[in-house]
Amino acid sequence: MPFISDKGHKMPESPIRKLVPFAENAKKRGTKVYHLNIGQPDIKTPNIAIDAVKNCNIEVLEYGKSQGFDSFREKIALYYKNININLDKDDIIVTTGGSEALIFTIATIADEGDEIIISEPFYANYKAFATNVGVKIVPIHSSIDDNFALPPVSKLEKMITPKTRAILITNPGNPTGYLYTQKEIEELIQLAKKHDIYIVSDEVYREFVYDNSKHFSVLQVEGADENTIVIDSVSKRYSMCGARIGYMISKNKKVMSTALKFAQARLSPPIFAQIASEAALDTPESYFEEISKEYLERRNTLISGLEKIDGVKVGKPNGAFYCIAELPVKNADDFAQWLLEKFDLNGETVMIAPGAGFYSTPGVGLNQVRIAYVLKKEDLEKSVKILEAALKAYNARD
Amino acid sequence: MPFISDKGHKMPESPIRKLVPFAENAKKRGTKVYHLNIGQPDIKTPNIAIDAVKNCNIEVLEYGKSQGFDSFREKIALYYKNININLDKDDIIVTTGGSEALIFTIATIADEGDEIIISEPFYANYKAFATNVGVKIVPIHSSIDDNFALPPVSKLEKMITPKTRAILITNPGNPTGYLYTQKEIEELIQLAKKHDIYIVSDEVYREFVYDNSKHFSVLQVEGADENTIVIDSVSKRYSMCGARIGYMISKNKKVMSTALKFAQARLSPPIFAQIASEAALDTPESYFEEISKEYLERRNTLISGLEKIDGVKVGKPNGAFYCIAELPVKNADDFAQWLLEKFDLNGETVMIAPGAGFYSTPGVGLNQVRIAYVLKKEDLEKSVKILEAALKAYNARD
Ligand SMILES: Cc1ncc(COP(=O)(O)O)c(C=O)c1O
Ligand SMILES: Cc1ncc(COP(=O)(O)O)c(C=O)c1O
Repeated sequence: MPFISDKGHKMPESPIRKLVPFAENAKKRGTKVYHLNIGQPDIKTPNIAIDAVKNCNIEVLEYGKSQGFDSFREKIALYYKNININLDKDDIIVTTGGSEALIFTIATIADEGDEIIISEPFYANYKAFATNVGVKIVPIHSSIDDNFALPPVSKLEKMITPKTRAILITNPGNPTGYLYTQKEIEELIQLAKKHDIYIVSDEVYREFVYDNSKHFSVLQVEGADENTIVIDSVSKRYSMCGARIGYMISKNKKVMSTALKFAQARLSPPIFAQIASEAALDTPESYFEEISKEYLERRNTLISGLEKIDGVKVGKPNGAFYCIAELPVKNADDFAQWLLEKFDLNGETVMIAPGAGFYSTPGVGLNQVRIAYVLKKEDLEKSVKILEAALKAYNARD
Repeated sequence: MPFISDKGHKMPESPIRKLVPFAENAKKRGTKVYHLNIGQPDIKTPNIAIDAVKNCNIEVLEYGKSQGFDSFREKIALYYKNININLDKDDIIVTTGGSEALIFTIATIADEGDEIIISEPFYANYKAFATNVGVKIVPIHSSIDDNFALPPVSKLEKMITPKTRAILITNPGNPTGYLYTQKEIEELIQLAKKHDIYIVSDEVYREFVYDNSKHFSVLQVEGADENTIVIDSVSKRYSMCGARIGYMISKNKKVMSTALKFAQARLSPPIFAQIASEAALDTPESYFEEISKEYLERRNTLISGLEKIDGVKVGKPNGAFYCIAELPVKNADDFAQWLLEKFDLNGETVMIAPGAGFYSTPGVGLNQVRIAYVLKKEDLEKSVKILEAALKAYNARD
């Protein structure tokens, strides 16, 4: 057999997608599956975005600029201006999803063997992107018992080594829903400046914050231009995950000129998707107000439902649309698969993401799952009932 | 200053794109620039592809399957069936351009320090994709004097080391236009099997072959399933480079399941682009017949024009739509920039890609350029005149 790369062997399977074949089988059996496993909102994409593509006038579907359309980047800068962040279009590279912004960022700032500190649990694909280039993720534990708050900066500082290149935060967090305070962001940046490292801030859920909290971006801190990189995306903001458009943002010119070389190698971000995304930036404020209300209700429905189930512990998310729940099971991986293979409540079951995949420390999170509240309230209510019945049935097996 | 990765420093600047700012300046001065530097055809994208997007009915623009739509992959398999290659949809992963298929392939089969043999000159971005993961390209020289034919396999064999993971070929070649014979393909595969390595065959220009030659794919060789990987793309075939859809193809199940992990990490290929590409597969045969005739004429116009210029030597391409030309200048890089900065013929100039970027051996190809014949005949005729006048003027400077 010819060679398969070591990093290929090490690439984690996506905890979000690895149960897909079991879900497909369940559907074949006629079971309805509620998808709580993936951050795929059921919210309608703004018409303005879809219509822009339908009305576009393309004769030759050409490559675009590697860093994205000028007009699009100018409009992105305007979006940021509206939230009091001053950017030039050249501080922005348009990428194929926030995913590619993460890939470019890691490749730009870290080599094989270098380290990036991330508080766990974290977005599972960070591990995949790091593995791809041999970069090591150094996890720092955050706990469900204090809502996955950032550990004290003094504790973070102890983990910095000569190989540390960045601290990567997700604000608000997936899967935790944790929202960073202004003070925390400022402390993190001070730490980064002191040690000459980056704060990479993944802010793709920026618009999804609850309970009158306000999102504070690393880009709002003065004097931090050299040390900050932001990952952004239209996927969740405008419910257009399938477009595949994100942005990498930094005022560090060396970072951007290096990332541009990676961008040039893959030629151009997708054109239809850029047209749709550029138009989406005109989505009226009212769209977000409605959606915020909707997600708040969903969160409250899900969390209060889960809290009532015997033996379930759940963090209270302040942002994004996920929560981590601790279940009264030994192995949530097995439970999640069992839900799809062996269980249904009146012909319905749920798909959830096993928690261990969101940790890089082996053996942690085994009794946890991530649940996305991307479905409408009634479906979430049903899902909670299904989970409750399933836990009883699962623990009553012999 | 915080850290910039070693691979970021090493990432080559795209020889195709690095002159873009100079071209933009030329346009600002009012100079018309003929773009011979990039493989961006001026051919109309088939209506069928654009219309499919305009007529699609999307409410929520969701993530798709990481390996691409099932229906699309089934139709790709059908396309291959028509050229006598039997594939199952699971032998195909849909990627964001052939570019991403190359990225997944290299990541799947090679680790940092591993080697891939490529005959040079080669598609410049191979170097970038290899650099990204620390893989070393081992070049074997092919010469303009025999139309960049593949060096004898015995010579290739001598370059194989315990670190060699693959021989990467481009068939037909960019920038050389070289078309591999069936015998060469079979010999290469024998060699690969003997040494337990892969033949990665980039066949994105498969449809562009001239002079009654026939393309022979590595997928047509029996008993080579474990050792062959094909890179394909809709970019050039249907003149839809901006869609960003390609495919990675292999019957090696371990290769595909590993590549799928990389695909899952980036979630999904772009949806609009998949819709357009799936529809494009229904493009009638007559489209290709017309285009083939068009490109043949373009090639003949360009090559015979270049051959008439004093001191210019040019290979005769049998496929794709590029040629390498040797110019009577010491430094084609400087000449290409000068063309944009200092020269015009009646308000017009040309943009060409300096040749050195297509070689990985330092100092080779300095007097060469790559010229793409992606413009209509009249524009190519003008471009040749411009080049001729420019060479005179350039060499008459003091
Ligand atoms: C925290 C976080 N970052 C990045 C992404 C990547 O999203 P996309 O590539 O669709 O922009 C996701 C997707 O779920 C995410 O949750
Ligand atoms: C030989 C070759 N392979 C791959 C590509 C990548 O093309 P794309 O990513 O548009 O499919 C190109 C583009 O010019 C090419 O010339």
